[in-house]
Amino acid sequence: MHVIIDLCVVPLGIGVSVSKEIAACQRVIEASGLEHRMHAYGTNIEGPWDDVMAVVKRCHEVVHEMGAPRITTTIKLGTRTDREQSMDDKVESVEAKLRDSQ
Amino acid sequence: MHVIIDLCVVPLGIGVSVSKEIAACQRVIEASGLEHRMHAYGTNIEGPWDDVMAVVKRCHEVVHEMGAPRITTTIKLGTRTDREQSMDDKVESVEAKLRDSQ
Amino acid sequence: MHVIIDLCVVPLGIGVSVSKEIAACQRVIEASGLEHRMHAYGTNIEGPWDDVMAVVKRCHEVVHEMGAPRITTTIKLGTRTDREQSMDDKVESVEAKLRDSQ
Amino acid sequence: MHVIIDLCVVPLGIGVSVSKEIAACQRVIEASGLEHRMHAYGTNIEGPWDDVMAVVKRCHEVVHEMGAPRITTTIKLGTRTDREQSMDDKVESVEAKLRDSQ
Repeated sequence: MHVIIDLCVVPLGIGVSVSKEIAACQRVIEASGLEHRMHAYGTNIEGPWDDVMAVVKRCHEVVHEMGAPRITTTIKLGTRTDREQSMDDKVESVEAKLRDSQ
Repeated sequence: MHVIIDLCVVPLGIGVSVSKEIAACQRVIEASGLEHRMHAYGTNIEGPWDDVMAVVKRCHEVVHEMGAPRITTTIKLGTRTDREQSMDDKVESVEAKLRDSQ
Repeated sequence: MHVIIDLCVVPLGIGVSVSKEIAACQRVIEASGLEHRMHAYGTNIEGPWDDVMAVVKRCHEVVHEMGAPRITTTIKLGTRTDREQSMDDKVESVEAKLRDSQ
Repeated sequence: MHVIIDLCVVPLGIGVSVSKEIAACQRVIEASGLEHRMHAYGTNIEGPWDDVMAVVKRCHEVVHEMGAPRITTTIKLGTRTDREQSMDDKVESVEAKLRDSQ
């Protein structure tokens, strides 16, 4: 089962800046070899379900190891059986509609 | 790693009513034996990370098997290493603060 | 436009315990007079769109006033035009399906 | 109060393809003049709280007017009082950490 997720990891109890921990998660994601793209409020990742979910778990482990006593994460997660669709396909599908309507 | 999640599974492409599919997810959750509690916009589940995540995956599989071609799910997911905390502890912790302030 | 939301406010930069701030949000919600129900990972609130959104904004203001320099909130938010549906209706709709299948 | 949100609008009851409705939301966002950036699982928007929330409400209205009887939306929403931070600042802050660690 192929999945596209949007992952937003929020470490608590380490102060107001969390960019060091988010950068560590980015390295976990990059090390996985999965397609991914960071935005201002999370990171899109796509691939086989178990591989993607292993990345999410590893992010929690790494951020706890860095000293964060608490983490709250939000994930959106999409699967479909009617056809294959990549992250790029999703964006392109909307942009095509925007072009058509101009 | 113990986790408390809030799971909201949204099947697409099957019309406006999704309660049959949500009920099927509830049966998956109940069959897992994990602590859980449904509310009006999702279900809280707690337990060991891998067991909880296996339930999420099984929900997607079951809802696709029922005919939904597309699913978009939202998960909130909390872990902590400083102390054990159950779903009931979280609610009680806030309710205690509410009582104290009266 | 009637809306049912699930609100989860997460204050950052104030340490690992956030129950005092969540309790303050509960008081904001109670003061609004809107239907609401707390669970272990957020609070369901329902009512007219503008009233519900005013509560969300007030929660951010109050939690900042309490000293939290940063807040990250997750909201799920449902509207429908085909029929009226309360929070209780949503839960009952799933529970009826669960009873039917036994 | 300045806010950065991540908005994901999901129309239900209109079939499996929702790109036409998402494109309509993009036009609402563009018409607002607010800074925004679409990704594969939502759109980041930033600006004054009331302006951003007016866009979210307008998206629901427009998608219902297009015929969707039901919408479920997920929003992440960040505010901070310690300093100003744009969407670009957030991404740059993580990317700087990634460069430093190489």
